[in-house]
This record gives sequence, C-alpha cells and structure tokens, in this order.
Amino acid sequence: MDAKALWQRYQNWLYFHEGLGLYLDVSRMRFDDTFVDSLQPKFDQAFADMVALEKGAIANPDENRMVGHYWLRNPDLAPTPELTQEIAQTLEQIEAFAEKIQTGAIHPPRANRFTDIISIGIGGSALGPQFVAEALSPDFPPLKIHFIDNTDPAGIDRILTQLRNSLASTLVLVISKSGGTPEPRNGMIEVKKAYAGQNLEFSQYAVAITSVDSNLDKIAKAEGWLARFPMYDWVGGRTSEMSTVGLVPAALQGIDIRAILEGAKEMDDATRVADIKNNPAALLALSWYYAGNGKGEKDMVVLPYKDSLLLFSRYLQQLVMESLGKEKDLDGNTVYQGIAVYGNKGSTDQHAYVQQLREGVPNFFATLIEVLEDRQSPSPEIDPGVTSGDYLSGFLQGTRQALYENHRDSITVTIPQVNPRTVGALIALYERAVGLYASLVNINAYHQPGVEAGKKAAAAILDLQKSVIEVLQTEKSPLTLAEIAEKAGATEKIEAIYIILRHLYANQRGVVLHGNLGQPSSLKVSLG
Amino acid sequence: MDAKALWQRYQNWLYFHEGLGLYLDVSRMRFDDTFVDSLQPKFDQAFADMVALEKGAIANPDENRMVGHYWLRNPDLAPTPELTQEIAQTLEQIEAFAEKIQTGAIHPPRANRFTDIISIGIGGSALGPQFVAEALSPDFPPLKIHFIDNTDPAGIDRILTQLRNSLASTLVLVISKSGGTPEPRNGMIEVKKAYAGQNLEFSQYAVAITSVDSNLDKIAKAEGWLARFPMYDWVGGRTSEMSTVGLVPAALQGIDIRAILEGAKEMDDATRVADIKNNPAALLALSWYYAGNGKGEKDMVVLPYKDSLLLFSRYLQQLVMESLGKEKDLDGNTVYQGIAVYGNKGSTDQHAYVQQLREGVPNFFATLIEVLEDRQSPSPEIDPGVTSGDYLSGFLQGTRQALYENHRDSITVTIPQVNPRTVGALIALYERAVGLYASLVNINAYHQPGVEAGKKAAAAILDLQKSVIEVLQTEKSPLTLAEIAEKAGATEKIEAIYIILRHLYANQRGVVLHGNLGQPSSLKVSLG
Repeated sequence: MDAKALWQRYQNWLYFHEGLGLYLDVSRMRFDDTFVDSLQPKFDQAFADMVALEKGAIANPDENRMVGHYWLRNPDLAPTPELTQEIAQTLEQIEAFAEKIQTGAIHPPRANRFTDIISIGIGGSALGPQFVAEALSPDFPPLKIHFIDNTDPAGIDRILTQLRNSLASTLVLVISKSGGTPEPRNGMIEVKKAYAGQNLEFSQYAVAITSVDSNLDKIAKAEGWLARFPMYDWVGGRTSEMSTVGLVPAALQGIDIRAILEGAKEMDDATRVADIKNNPAALLALSWYYAGNGKGEKDMVVLPYKDSLLLFSRYLQQLVMESLGKEKDLDGNTVYQGIAVYGNKGSTDQHAYVQQLREGVPNFFATLIEVLEDRQSPSPEIDPGVTSGDYLSGFLQGTRQALYENHRDSITVTIPQVNPRTVGALIALYERAVGLYASLVNINAYHQPGVEAGKKAAAAILDLQKSVIEVLQTEKSPLTLAEIAEKAGATEKIEAIYIILRHLYANQRGVVLHGNLGQPSSLKVSLG
Repeated sequence: MDAKALWQRYQNWLYFHEGLGLYLDVSRMRFDDTFVDSLQPKFDQAFADMVALEKGAIANPDENRMVGHYWLRNPDLAPTPELTQEIAQTLEQIEAFAEKIQTGAIHPPRANRFTDIISIGIGGSALGPQFVAEALSPDFPPLKIHFIDNTDPAGIDRILTQLRNSLASTLVLVISKSGGTPEPRNGMIEVKKAYAGQNLEFSQYAVAITSVDSNLDKIAKAEGWLARFPMYDWVGGRTSEMSTVGLVPAALQGIDIRAILEGAKEMDDATRVADIKNNPAALLALSWYYAGNGKGEKDMVVLPYKDSLLLFSRYLQQLVMESLGKEKDLDGNTVYQGIAVYGNKGSTDQHAYVQQLREGVPNFFATLIEVLEDRQSPSPEIDPGVTSGDYLSGFLQGTRQALYENHRDSITVTIPQVNPRTVGALIALYERAVGLYASLVNINAYHQPGVEAGKKAAAAILDLQKSVIEVLQTEKSPLTLAEIAEKAGATEKIEAIYIILRHLYANQRGVVLHGNLGQPSSLKVSLG
C-alpha cells in the first residue's frame, strides 16, 4: 500500500474518544472491507450477547451466575434496586474506611497510624491491585503496599523480613472469594503467625475481602477483624479490579477510585455502540480475529511505552488467556481456543526481544500503547530541541513502522496520560473486547474449568504425600520407591512419590534418601 | 504411555549434576529415539561449532568479533595469556571497589557511605542485573539498587523523586557498551541534572561500565568519575551478566560473585560433553527443536515455582529471542527463526493464564523450574503434616501432570536452592542451550541486525521532528498536515508528522493543534 493510501486508511479507521482523549489505530492490521463485512453477522450476535449479559443473563452457566462487573461503575444498570444501592453503599464504605485509616482514626494498637499494607491474594485478587499500584500509586503513598501472591515460603519470608520492624503498623488485606483457595489461606496463616510472634493481635490489623458468609468471612467476623468487604458472585476474579478487590487497596494508597470507575463507565458506554467502526472494543476484537484467524494463531504482544504500565501485559495475560483459553465452544465442540499474551514495555523490550518480532517467527501481532504526556513537568533538552520523551515517542513510531515494513501487524492505543480515569478506561476496553471476541468465536469467557482441575491434581499430590509418610512411619527398614508405592496402594504414582520424597528430603522433614540421587531406582528411603 | 513405561522413560532421560544438585527432566517432551537419532548429525555439528566458538572463532561476523562469555568464568580458556590475566584482574578490581564502597573507604562527599544505587542501562545492561538482584539480593543489602532501564521521562522522575532525599548517598552506575545508545545516555543526562539540581558534583557519584575509549569512557575519564570498568567486545549484551555489567552491581549488593562464576563454570564444563543425553544444554536444545519442529512453532512458557525467580523468564526472553529470532540462516536463506518466550511464576500463574495452557491453544511447551529448598528456616504446618512449600510443590506436580494428560509437553529443571551458584549455573545452561540450538537450525545467535534497524527508524523520526519544527518556525499562518509535509519535503511521511505533532502538542512544546483531534485532515497547526 503506498503512503497516500496508507494515510487514508489510517484516517478512515482512526477511533477517537473525545471525553477520554483516547485513540485507537487499527490501520496496521491488514484486513480489508470484505473481511469486515464477513464478520458483521458474528458481530450482530456479539452485540446482542452483550446486551443480554448486561441485563443479567446467566452468562456463566457452570457456576449459575450473572456477570455484572459493568454495574460496578454504573450501578443504575444493576438488575435490581437493592443491588444498585448495595454497590453505591459499598463504595462509600471503602472511601470512609480508607479515610479513617489514612487519618489515623482507625489505627493499630501500638502506633498512631498504619504505614504499610500486606495484600494477600492470588490471580484476580492480585494482578489488578498490582497493576493499579504500579500505574497509579503516588511516589509517597499514605500506605505502602506489598503483595503476597503465592504460596512460596521464601517469598512470604522476604516480605515479612523486610517488614519486621514495621509489622506493628502494617495493615493486612486478605482477598479471597471463597477463603478456601490454598495460596491466600496459607499466606494468611503464615502472616498471622508472624504477628503472633511479635505479640500483635492479628485481628486488629486484618481486613477481609471475601464473599459474605465464606469461611474467611466467618473467621473475620468471629475474630473481630477491622473490616470486612463483600465480594459478589456476579464479579469474576479477572474482572474484579473495580470491585472491593481492587478498590480497597487503591483507596488506601490514595488513588482516586471514583475516577477509575468514571473512566470505566465512559468506556463501557463507548463500547455499547453496536457499530464495529465506532466501538473501540469491537475494533480490537475484529483485529484479534483477523490476526489469529479466529483461532488464536497469533500471540498478542503488548508493549506500553511507559514504565508505569509495565504490569498491564501481565494483567491482560490473565484477562485474555483465562477468558479465551477454552477447550470447548458453547456448542460442546472441541476448539482449543485462546490468545497468548505477553510483553513488558517499550522501548526497553526493543533491546530484548523486538529483534525476534522484527525478523523472526511471524507468530504474533503487537499492541503498542502510547501515552502522550511524557511527564508532569516540562522536560529538559537532551539534544537541541529534543527530549527524552521525544526519543520514547520516536522509538514507538520506529518500531511500529519497522514491524509494518516486515509484514507484522500492530494496533496502537493512545491515551493522554496515565491517570485513574484512563486506567479505568483501559481495563474496561479490554474487558469488553474479550467479551465480544468470545462471542465471535462462540465460547464462554466467564468460567475457568482448567483452574479447578489443577487444584484437584495438587490436592491429590498432598493426599499421596500423607499416604507415603504413613507407610514410612509404619515400616522400620528403608524401602525402595517401588516398595513405598506398592504399600501406599499407588504403584502408578511412583514418579510422583519420588518427587514428593525428594522435596521432603531437601527440607529436613524427617525423610532420608540413601543411594544415588540421580538414579531413583537405586534409592532407599527411611524416616531419619 | 502407561505409568510403568512413563516411569522408565523418566529415569532413562533424567539428567543429574551431582556437584550442582541440578536435575533436568525432559521425559514429558514426547520425542522418541528415532527423532533423537535423526538429530545426531546436527548435534555433531553443534558440538564442533561450540568448540570452535570457545577457541575464539569469529562467531559474530557482522561485528567481526569473538564470543567469549565462557572465558569470564574460566579465564584459563581465554585465547591469550593477556586476556586471562585481564579477566582475573578485573574481577579483583570489582571486589576491591565493592568493598571500599561498602566499608565507606570510598564515600560520597556529604555522607559516610553510599546507601543506594541507580543503575542506568537497557537490554543486556539491565535484564541480567535486574534478574540477579531479584533472585539474590539480601533482604537488607548494603546498597539498595534502583533501575532506570528506559527513556521514559515519568519513569526517570519516579526513581529520582523517590530518591530525592538520599541522592547525596546514591551511587550511579552508567552501563552502556558504546555510550551512544540513546536510552542510557538520556538517563545519564537527566540524572546528572538531578545531581546538579542538589549541588552535588556528579563525578563523585558516578561509575562507568563501558568499552575502553568509548564516548562514555572518555567522559568518565575527563570528569574523573569514581571508577571505570571495561566491557569487552567479545561479550554480547545478552550474555554479559558475568562481565562487569552484572558483577559490579551484584558485588555492590553483597552478592557472592565468585559463586555465580563458579556455578557457571561448572555448568559450562557439564555442557561441553559431546553427548546429548549427558549434556543438559543439549537436552534443552533437543527438546526445543522437538517442540517447535526446528522452526519455533511452539512458544516457550517459563514457570519458576519460586518468587525470587520471577524475572528469569524476562531474562530468557532476551537471551532466547534476541539470539534466535533471525530472518536469515547462515547460508542466507530466509527462515524467520526464533522461539517466543514468556512466563512469570508458579503457582501464581496457575490463577492467571494456566487455564489456557491446559485447555486452550496448544501452541507452547512449558518449562517448570522447581526449587527443592522451600525456605531457609523450618516451615510451620498449615495443615497437619503439610507446609506452604508442600502446596507449592504439589501445584508444580499437578500442573505438570495436567499438562501431560492434555498432551502439552513440559520440561522440568530442578535446583536445590536459589543461590549465587545455581543462578550462575542456570544462566550458563541457557546460554549454551541457545548456542547449540542456533547451530541445529543454522543461524547466527550472536548478532541482532533488527535492533539496529529500529534505532535508525527512530533517528529518522527525530530528524523529521526537527524539519517539521523548522517549517512551523518559518511560517506565520497555521498549516494543514499536508502543507507541513510538503514544505518539509516529506509528503510520504504525513502520518508520522501527525503523530509527532500530537505528541508535541500534548507536552506544551509550543505546538498548537486547531480543529477536530479525531480527524487529522481537519487540523491546522501553528507554533503558539
């Protein structure tokens, strides 16, 4: 395409949202009008699905629940007046609580005010809060946030060690819908022990964010924790940033949560338009479908040219891959859907893997995120008339152009600055794009059957560990792996038993391995 | 494959390095013996290439240089006695410098000792130091490190604002091979201004890590910086962690750099074995080739089950993708090679995108990294007989098993703990695997022509910006974009001009846009 035609194509497809100052450019996705026309019937269905969803259809039949994260930013849309009221009240409670914490009206027993937060949560209960903290937390926030987002003992130790001198002024958020997910439960138990170790009454530092009447909620109620905030069954983990999950930590850090909600609301309004060309989420879904042939054949590489958006790609990994990565479509056909997402930030990544993007396997399309405002104050000149931000802008343009010249497609999203409103808008934009794309490829974006499978597999391993320990406890002489497996009634699981024992041995858990560690069949095992 | 046969396969292929306590399991890559035999001739060549490389062959013909990162951990292998001596001396200089900084023998003019480090570098001059800091830095390091790894003005501001009260005790490392790469140069200039703004003499805080006689080296020499450490032309950016680039920041943080080197040396020795089955790097290269059909058809998903290894996948993104992502093979054929790499950590990612890995697009193979030691001290029990670490271990096994059952391949690397020796070994393992794989697919792993292309494209944008400003300066009345493009002699670049002007306008750089921002053709531009 010559420069003139390309410029025309750019203008024809340029989307601009005046209120948000947000642009979306899909001109470098090389679809043509015939392709767009061919998808129109699918989009008609997708727009209809969206309307039904927002009205409260049971969009997640597995869990028999509605999908209502849209209502969080526009409570008037909620299907009942009670729900509308509840959403508004919860928001007020969050703000009131954050204010009391920040002013010291609520303070820890041995300090005038809270200085730090440990946020315990995983997946949807971590990625949103982490992304938003990195993007929006002030340089000197009223409370500094730290995350425990795993069940790694060394990781937990690192946070607790770094905070050991300020534990007495550290607030703990435990974020878990059911309260039964092992990672946050384990984190909570270990953190509780750390407080007990300093003779601090955990309940005076703890806040629960969980479903009403979950196990966690019951514990928090019984122990008299500082506060409890509700998680709703109509908000899925990966779309929970604008529920209590995301808003409580954000408000505590001094981030304007009403502006986040406002930006999301504006974007929700914009992405309700049943017209592909005038709906930025539809333009994204169209582009994704084009890139990967509706089958996820291309990875989505996300490159924000702004340090504070570093975690956006990781946030999108969950939102996109957990929503779209499905074995079955809605009719029960095996489809192996999904879109792989990765990326960090530009121009940094240009010095890492952009070499491959330019020249190597053409198995991706890029999403470049441009932020117009370089910084809050004027920039010094690096060269005459040129600033650091001009370089950053030049690198973005250079990469976009070089990708295009090498027949690699790209999308560019432009926002005026990184602020609560634009971050809310970005989240809402991608939430909707995922929903529309799911309709286009006829899958359920709102369940995650594979995650459940993983939890079960892990539970089976822990059961096996118990059986193995029991076998070793009843035997006096050392046993081979095969003997242990047989006595545990698990001859098919000998490899898993070996891996369990190797782990226990390495942690001085009373298990001793004799023999050549590199030759499992040579090993004899005993309790030492 | 039934459980018994699978257990046999596991044992047959299990690699164990006794000295390092490192295991590699490739049994879940479903290649058969015929496949392995078919690759033997390619491996014979790859092993021969490796020998030539280590002896000092010109492995990077583009830049006419040797590839000698192996010599850094075993200086006796260097091709000349002078080089051997220089490597050893540099190491001693690093240690001596770090000790003087830590003890305060070298201290800043207005403080007893340095407390913080700003490390300015990008790509290979950032990713290794960032990965190693995250993995190995003590909880309370003698100096705390902060990175400027981009030319994002807001990102630079964030670091400088957070350090504004401790700038007088902050050491600055400027890491840039040529000294001409814009990102670190811009970072250095802005940081220098910040020091000047506090009336601090920058040279008394600054250390240069650069090629001898580079522009940066000359500046550092002329201004009398605290120290200068050499970068060698025979060490590429993505394999520079064990050169001054990685060792200086590591030593300053109190990390045992000799142990890193020792671990890498042991791994280098182990990966010189010209026998696929007894060479862990060859086993990786074999597995990668199998997974992606020698064409990168599958992405490499890297999942360390350990928080401190979070950045390993990002480190590998550069090492693998920049090395392997090439358009041409060594014979000049167009091949579009590469392997896409992404990942964060387990079990966290199980609550993010592992849903897609289990059930969605089967376009990847996984690498699980297991760390046997849970933590340095004994673990409390979460449930009777069960620790947080048991859960983590169970999640790893559960994921590995669930992937296998769904016909998704995986590799498992097991290390006894995260320490300088094992981190050195991991880096060396993947460096060698990349080198061997490059031989298998007949490409040059040691150049990066696409990165240069990106720099040129960006420079052209900055030149265009200057032309546009000149046009606006000579005109009195507002111009359309088309008029500006014509007067700048760049009618083909009207879109780039629009993007440049939009950026300048957003940053109050004297440019004013009149008209509808969403319709570029409606705009008139003037200097305000």
